[in-house]
Formats: sequence, structure tokens, C-alpha cells
Amino acid sequence: MFQFMTTSRIVFGEGALQSSLSILNQFGYSVLLVTGKDLSRSQMITRYLKSQSMRYQHISVSNEPNITMVEESAVVARRFKPDMVVAIGGGSVIDMGKALAAMVTNNGDLYDYVEVVGRNVPIKAAPLPMIAIPTTASTGAEVTKNAVLKSGQDKVKVSLRSPEMLPNVAIVDPTLTYGTDPQTSGRGAMDAFTHLMEAYVCGEPNPLTDMICEEGLRRLARSIIPGCRQDNPRARSDLSFAAMLGGMAITNAKLGAAHGLASALGGKIRAPHSVITARLAPFVMNENMRAAKQSGRNDLLTRYRKIAQFVTENDDAHMDDSIHWVNSMLDKLELPTLSYYGICDVSFDAIAEDALKSVAIKGNPLPLTQDRLVEVLNQVCACDHRQNRREQGDDLPEMA
Amino acid sequence: MFQFMTTSRIVFGEGALQSSLSILNQFGYSVLLVTGKDLSRSQMITRYLKSQSMRYQHISVSNEPNITMVEESAVVARRFKPDMVVAIGGGSVIDMGKALAAMVTNNGDLYDYVEVVGRNVPIKAAPLPMIAIPTTASTGAEVTKNAVLKSGQDKVKVSLRSPEMLPNVAIVDPTLTYGTDPQTSGRGAMDAFTHLMEAYVCGEPNPLTDMICEEGLRRLARSIIPGCRQDNPRARSDLSFAAMLGGMAITNAKLGAAHGLASALGGKIRAPHSVITARLAPFVMNENMRAAKQSGRNDLLTRYRKIAQFVTENDDAHMDDSIHWVNSMLDKLELPTLSYYGICDVSFDAIAEDALKSVAIKGNPLPLTQDRLVEVLNQVCACDHRQNRREQGDDLPEMA
Repeated sequence: MFQFMTTSRIVFGEGALQSSLSILNQFGYSVLLVTGKDLSRSQMITRYLKSQSMRYQHISVSNEPNITMVEESAVVARRFKPDMVVAIGGGSVIDMGKALAAMVTNNGDLYDYVEVVGRNVPIKAAPLPMIAIPTTASTGAEVTKNAVLKSGQDKVKVSLRSPEMLPNVAIVDPTLTYGTDPQTSGRGAMDAFTHLMEAYVCGEPNPLTDMICEEGLRRLARSIIPGCRQDNPRARSDLSFAAMLGGMAITNAKLGAAHGLASALGGKIRAPHSVITARLAPFVMNENMRAAKQSGRNDLLTRYRKIAQFVTENDDAHMDDSIHWVNSMLDKLELPTLSYYGICDVSFDAIAEDALKSVAIKGNPLPLTQDRLVEVLNQVCACDHRQNRREQGDDLPEMA
Repeated sequence: MFQFMTTSRIVFGEGALQSSLSILNQFGYSVLLVTGKDLSRSQMITRYLKSQSMRYQHISVSNEPNITMVEESAVVARRFKPDMVVAIGGGSVIDMGKALAAMVTNNGDLYDYVEVVGRNVPIKAAPLPMIAIPTTASTGAEVTKNAVLKSGQDKVKVSLRSPEMLPNVAIVDPTLTYGTDPQTSGRGAMDAFTHLMEAYVCGEPNPLTDMICEEGLRRLARSIIPGCRQDNPRARSDLSFAAMLGGMAITNAKLGAAHGLASALGGKIRAPHSVITARLAPFVMNENMRAAKQSGRNDLLTRYRKIAQFVTENDDAHMDDSIHWVNSMLDKLELPTLSYYGICDVSFDAIAEDALKSVAIKGNPLPLTQDRLVEVLNQVCACDHRQNRREQGDDLPEMA
């Protein structure tokens, strides 16, 4: 048995934003507009709101939102009494929008509702109607039901989470991603890959998420290089679509050890979440394949082989080819290594211990012990070290 | 650019009904319960409502709902003041539930809102929360946004249609289809096939409906015979899943000439809608392939070949194999012919003319003229005639 939930209305395609602005009128006439620093993409919306004589209050997010930022903005937002929230930007901006939509209608302190550092009370009142407009192909936050927030003091990332927080409308216009530089595009695409990959092999997949992951992996693989390097319309569209499918998948299936470790590492090293999960992915895949062979989980090995087939577009691909593909993408897209962010200097025992308490790791297809997680982190560090020395001219053998 | 909408919460699987009854509590405490004649499957719900001291008003539907039935029941329903509608049954029962959910909150006459015979005014107030629980694997009404109603005087079928009419929750429990006789199961499965097939080749497909149709066609094909003949759990589950995917597909893509002709024939012959569309399907496929060849629509020919590959599970299948497969299924599942219902006695010109006015035919991948539609109907009739004579012992050559 499985459940499936998604954003009730999705508009997707080139020009989707311009042609669906009138949807806003359905929700009232006063808008809490959440954007990033760059206002070029949101101008189309502010012009429209003015043309319709709609009121709006603008909130701009310049970093990953933290709890204090949400609380302060919620005070402003409640005073404004918006009918809806419109968030246009990357994952952080959309998460900020989702958190504000919930906090405007629910009294009390944000700490009442957040996981881990808070009381984790379910939100009671329905959030404000929320329209999510992603400008990156990455997190798929336009179709997920949580908002990731930084907790200042505790140096951890936590979620405000509720099925009610699924946006009411997602407007996914791939042209909004045009002009994004190759490295940012690459981080986003690999973020989508890690969502699709972990949801596909997780402990609780379902037939709907399976078909979503398969389609997402195929489109991502065929378009990741052309789409990240330039504004190739078909490729950029594939990446926006794959990112959205990744969001649908993780909302309705589970994640795994890459996200579990990332949630523990997030507070310790200053690497973007997408770089952490993507850089961990090949090591976690390797560890899970090892464990699956040991425990005779052929169903899982078949899934890894299918991932290899999807991403290489070769029906004869071996499951290890999925790992080679990820490594080759990390290389080509020039994602920074985790040692660059100092992963080798943190206590792996503490990270592994924290990771085991995360929500994400419970979705891992097989239980991994603290020792095995430490081993995964050791491998990441050893590999980065070797690579750095190679780049400095040392001649070391390839890792087996 | 495309839009995608679906039921915001889907619970699917064996035992889904029993384990998700508590969802009802979220919507209030008074229930308008819509069922068919057979109450065996709804007992689980009435027992639950009693155990929770929830109020309910029971409405039983014994035939395809007509406008008068909906209006009379709406009077009863408005007086009861329900918080939600729960409909458990086949497509007719769920459509009745959807129509009532809309009519309880919207004042005025049903004729204000229905298409074709009515004024087609958009419904204004949000319908009551609606929980749809299918007991057949057929129409996918649990994830569609319209209710098909018979108009008594006009002898046509019309739709009450609005995005707001998508059910809030779909509980799809394949065990509720157990015990359905092979012929009823076969009609339902072929109904799902026709939805998936017409949505896949229609004039406005999109990447989400494509992946939905592909998965639906694969599952339907592998399970149609074992699932219709007996209560094979995997096969029944595949059919319920494929039927739901068919509903998602037609809500977000278009239909075609089989449904266009069926809507015109529906008022003239007393055949079930599913028999009409399924029996028309191979002839419409043949006509569309002919027209696609003539106008060089290779994209469309590729789609027909893919359908053949999905249903035969053979990558070398030719597009005509899709037609052979449908004919073989119609045979094996013993669906009655349309001549049995008197199709040869109606005026094909009038039917073709009416069909051209239908909403469905606008989705056909290529425009078909009235003459070509008449030709399709002639072929149906000639073929049935030949088959009948063959069964009576005449020795006639096969149709080319």
C-alpha cells in the first residue's frame, strides 16, 4: 500500500509563467511575494500585480532561510494579511515561501512546529494558498511538502513539514533557468539526480514513484551536459522536468544514506547541500551494493543495474556503471570536492551517529551501521586526498 | 506548455480502504454516502462511521445517473448539510458523488452548469470535500474532474466539468474489485485501455501523460487476461493501477475519435460506454494510422508502434500489431459486438455529424472528416456482420 500526494496544479513549459499569471487572481488580491536577491525574474510578476491593482508585500531572501528570518518575516507578513504567497526563486526562496504560508495562519512560535530542534507539533490551520515558481532545476521544492530551515544556534538543518505545505500551484518555466552558470546548473542537476536515485532504491518505493524516477533519470542523463553548459531549450526543459520529478519522488518515497549523512554534515561544513549529497552519492551507492550482495537483495541490485541502464542509455550496462557515470558527471560539471570544505577535519564518528538519527537514513534500502557510515566517510576523504595529490603531480595508483 | 492536475491524495493498495478510513475524520463528521445497489463493499464504511459517531445520509445509485436523479438527490443532500461526500462504487457512483459534491455548494439548477444541453456556466463555489473509492478497474473516475450524466429528454450524455471537481482523496483498493465477473472486468479493462491509448496518441500529449500512458499500457497488457478471469492479486492490482493512470491521462491530455463517436452513439444505442469505445478503438486506430501515413505524421506512427510494443511486450512489434492485440482482447474477453446493440440500424451521417461536435473528437491526433467517420462506422458494421455470418456457418473470406 502506498500514498501519493503532489501539488494539485502544475503548469510546465517555456513561457508558462507569462501565460499563467492570471491564476493568481483566483486566490485573492493581496500577495506576499518572496524572491531572491536578483529581481530580474520576478519583474514579470510585479508588473502583473500592478496592472491588476493587486497589493503586495515583498520579502527578499539572500541566503538559506534560518528560523529567525522566518519568524521575523512572519511578523511582517501577518500584519500585511496576504491572501496568498507567491515565491519565485531557487529552493531556499520557495522553502521560505512555504514556511511563511504556514506561519501566517498558524499561531505560536516556529519552534513549536519544526522537527529535531523544535516540538514537532503538526501544523493545525491550513497554510495560505502558495504558488511556487522555481528559477533553478534542482530541489523540486515546488512539489515537496517541507521547508528546510537552518537553525542558527544548533548548526543543524531542520524541516517544517506537513502534507498541507504542498504548494497549490507550481509554475515551472524552464526559460527561468536560462543564463544560470554551468557550475550552479551542475550542482542543481546533481541534486535532482540524488533525489531520483535515492528514491528509486529506497526502502519504500511505489509504482508511481518508480515510473517518476525512471523517467526523471532518463531525461536527466540525456540532458545534463548540454543543459548545464548552455541554454539548449530541450535540455534545460528536461532538467527542469527531472528536478520536478525528483521532488515528486522524494515526497512520496523515501531517501537514503546520502541524505542522512548530508543532514548531519550540513551543520559542520559550509558546503551546499547539493554538493554534499552528490559527492556522497557514489560512495553510498557502492556501500549499498556491497551490503545488497552480502544479504542477497537481488531486487536492489536489479534497481542499481536499471539506474546504470537509464543513465548510460545502454541496456547491457552493469550496475557499477551507475557509479562511474556519477563520478564522470561530478568531474565534467566540476563540482568541488568535500575535502575542499574540510570534510577530513570533522569527527566521522559524531557525523555517523547524527546521521543515524536523521529521517532520511531510515529510507536507506538496507540498515547501515555506524562503522559502515564512518567507512563511507573515510573513503570520501581518502579519495579526495588522492585526487588532490594527483592534481599536485604525485603518481598514485587508481583506487580499486 | 502543459498543465497537470490530479487528486491531491491517493492511497493505493490491498487493504487501502480499511487502513485509511481515519482520513474521513479530517473533513468533518457528517457524510453524504453514495453507493451502488450492492452494499457489501460499503459496509466497512458504515461500520466505521457508526463507530466514530459520525452522521451519514445514504444515497444509492442503481443506474447511470441522469440529471433529474442528481437534482432530486441534491435537494436531500442540501437539507442534510454534509461536511463531505464519500462515494464507493463504479464510475457511475463516483460521478454521482462528484456531481452532488458540486451541487450542494452551488446554488441553482444543474442545467446552469452542464455542457451541451445546459448553459455551461463554470461552477463558482468549491464543491464539498469528496472521497472517491472505486470498486471497479475501469473509468478512473477517482482521478478525473468531470461527472458524466445522462440527460433524460435529450438522449445524450453530458458532463459537469471543473478542475475543482477532482476528488480530494482517492482510495484505490484492488481487493474491492475481487469477485467481479470476467465480462464486467473485461469491459472495465478495455475502458482503461481506450483511455490510455487515445490519450497517448492525442493531439495534446505531454511528458507526464506520456509516462503515465506507457506505464498504464504495459501493466494493463501483462495483466488483462489473468486479472479479468480470476482474483489474481498482482493482476487485479495492475488493472486498478492502469485504470487510475487512464483517468490521470485523460484529465491532463485529450481523447480522440473513439470517444467522440461514442458520445454521439451513447444516446442512440443502449450499449455500455466502455463497450462502444473498446469496439470502436481498432477501427479508429486503423483510420488514424491511414491518415497519419497520408500526411507524413511519422511522430504519430511511432506512437502507434510504441503502443504495439507495450501491449505485445515485443520490441520488434509493428504498429498494426496494436490493432491485432485489441481485437484479440475483445475476442478473449467476449465483449459484445456493437451490431448486437443495433449499430447497423442508426444513421451514420447523423452520428458522424454529432461526433464532430463533441469535446472528445477535438483531441483526435488528426482531423477526420464526416465522410471518414461514416466510413469507420461502416467498417464496424460490416465487420460485425461478417463475424455474425461466420458464427452462423457461412464461409466468408477475412477482411483485408
